[in-house]
Amino acid sequence: MKKNYLLTPGPTPLPPEVCLAQAQPIIHHRTPQFQAVLKEVGEGLKYVFQTKNDVYILSSSGPGAMEAAVVNTLSAGDTALVVQGGKFGERWTEICKAYGIKAEVIDVPWGEGVLSAEIEKRLKAGPAIKAVFTTLCETSTGVANDIEAIGKVVGGTSALLVVDAISGLGAIDLQNDAWGVDICVSGSQKGLMLPPGLGFISVSAKAWKLVEQAKLPRYYLDLNRARKAWASTDTPFTPAISLVIALAESLKLMRADGLENIFARHRTMADATRAAVKALGLELFAPKAASDVVTAVKVPQGIDGEKLVKTMRDTYGVTIAGGQAELKGKVFRVAHMGHIGEFDIIVGISCLEKVLHQMGHSFVFGAGVRAAEEVFAGGKQ
Amino acid sequence: MKKNYLLTPGPTPLPPEVCLAQAQPIIHHRTPQFQAVLKEVGEGLKYVFQTKNDVYILSSSGPGAMEAAVVNTLSAGDTALVVQGGKFGERWTEICKAYGIKAEVIDVPWGEGVLSAEIEKRLKAGPAIKAVFTTLCETSTGVANDIEAIGKVVGGTSALLVVDAISGLGAIDLQNDAWGVDICVSGSQKGLMLPPGLGFISVSAKAWKLVEQAKLPRYYLDLNRARKAWASTDTPFTPAISLVIALAESLKLMRADGLENIFARHRTMADATRAAVKALGLELFAPKAASDVVTAVKVPQGIDGEKLVKTMRDTYGVTIAGGQAELKGKVFRVAHMGHIGEFDIIVGISCLEKVLHQMGHSFVFGAGVRAAEEVFAGGKQ
Repeated sequence: MKKNYLLTPGPTPLPPEVCLAQAQPIIHHRTPQFQAVLKEVGEGLKYVFQTKNDVYILSSSGPGAMEAAVVNTLSAGDTALVVQGGKFGERWTEICKAYGIKAEVIDVPWGEGVLSAEIEKRLKAGPAIKAVFTTLCETSTGVANDIEAIGKVVGGTSALLVVDAISGLGAIDLQNDAWGVDICVSGSQKGLMLPPGLGFISVSAKAWKLVEQAKLPRYYLDLNRARKAWASTDTPFTPAISLVIALAESLKLMRADGLENIFARHRTMADATRAAVKALGLELFAPKAASDVVTAVKVPQGIDGEKLVKTMRDTYGVTIAGGQAELKGKVFRVAHMGHIGEFDIIVGISCLEKVLHQMGHSFVFGAGVRAAEEVFAGGKQ
Repeated sequence: MKKNYLLTPGPTPLPPEVCLAQAQPIIHHRTPQFQAVLKEVGEGLKYVFQTKNDVYILSSSGPGAMEAAVVNTLSAGDTALVVQGGKFGERWTEICKAYGIKAEVIDVPWGEGVLSAEIEKRLKAGPAIKAVFTTLCETSTGVANDIEAIGKVVGGTSALLVVDAISGLGAIDLQNDAWGVDICVSGSQKGLMLPPGLGFISVSAKAWKLVEQAKLPRYYLDLNRARKAWASTDTPFTPAISLVIALAESLKLMRADGLENIFARHRTMADATRAAVKALGLELFAPKAASDVVTAVKVPQGIDGEKLVKTMRDTYGVTIAGGQAELKGKVFRVAHMGHIGEFDIIVGISCLEKVLHQMGHSFVFGAGVRAAEEVFAGGKQ
């Protein structure tokens, strides 16, 4: 018997209500029954996005929603400012390149957040910039960017502020309307506690003006189609019905919990995780800009980082994430996002202790768990 | 207590195994466990597509896979030949237009299949045509096109044969390799007995040559990315994991059944449905090219077609489909595709009799059911 524990930054574990919602007999999407679901999730998404704008549902993974943000607002030859600093920031650049958009890149060192002053400087120097593409939580490094500060510098310009909140939405605060985010994209398999397969995108009035002028070709991801269909509580194409029905369930749970409680829970789990790994003599990869979504930890000298992750998963059933791209083997990442609770963190840290010990890392057994328990208890004994 | 019966041409009902497969705890996609699933569905898809080519899984509805076929093979200004004849054929034209492809249209009257001789003529007259876009089963009219015959005339040219088999794949015969289909696209919610949310696309060697030259911009739907990832049993982006796991279940059921048995079952259900509606004094919309996937029936004089469909669904729980676009109110459509069996057809016909009677249509009670039973019994009493 091997029990499985999922502590990865997407997919994240599903609440049982969400699992079972998918198992219901399928219903047709052009029926009053499904329209009622769409209406409900439309309201729930506005709550989670903290916006009055409509949030459109795309049947795609997160990158589909990112591509929708680009192709619906820009035309070939346009200039955009892209904040890189990890694998997911780089995705914005890749999409821009694929569509002939000049991407001016802010190459933030991996493990650091972008400075809003840098964005301000680049916007002043580049009045042609039509959109600023950023990332709420850069999952590859564990960094959270200060979207509120970025919103203040972009808000006064003609450029759109586009945020990839695939990782982070519904886990840490993102006040789309109050902070001046024009387009926010997200995905289902992170803070929203669903399987992957749905993308989401909210569009401000300022952004719609660009949509009307944008000449990049698009069909499946065309937001004009989405808006037109949404006006009659419909989607332009057959949606991923079972996932939308599961979404209704997860949004119900999130509304019952309340965003403030959800954010506080994520903060405490992140604090506990950070305290635990430090107590084991490990170092955070992004100590200054660490998100409350996922914690990236440096693999200590002499330990095989990939083997650590594999052993935890394949021998003990505890799945955390390794490093991606240039961080492969150099960090491991423990998620504390979505349907993950205090005792899942305890399990993750306990298993980490077990395998680190086997691999020869020196520390006192239980030191990590103790540090986490202290955080959860609200202070040291 | 209202029991629900789904007789729509997408989504189609789900086998209980498929329902429950989705409800399992989610697993991470970059694990040996999920790779084993991908490997299994890769083989299963080849079986159902009757091809040796790889079949790529897209996390999108069917139109996403259709768009992938266009953007990966063509460049702006290219010419394509599009077979219209219903709402779904027209979708090819819409996608071509969105991407600056010159669409030469064969406007087949709704309710008829395209003549391969017409395609041959157009190909001879238009040597610049790079691809022929067709539809296996035009769900809006119930027509099945003769892909084998079309393959014979396209095969000898430099043009690609692209078939939208979203409706029909895994329900009626489509020998992609033997008939010379270069690109076949499909979706999950029809013959494959899954919820919507997955698209599929197979690509021949001839088609790959065009992919290498194609200049249309693409990112999320880029087949080069899909091919590269697939080579290491992976997907370019986080896939719709729960749907892929459900796919493994449905493909297992289909392989156990065998394509020949599946096709025979669809044929018998179609014959029974056609016999039943005729016995009720109704007329088929597409008598000459009727598919074994969905039967479109003309709404008789004096009957409100939309009310008929609504009453069956909202009062009695039997969901069939109404007419789309120009056929709105003029036809109704009964699906016999996927996880629909003999007695589901009996239920559908019985409910149709009940509501037609209420609406004043004159016929002998039970005449439709009797005709269907005779077909299922293999002959008249």
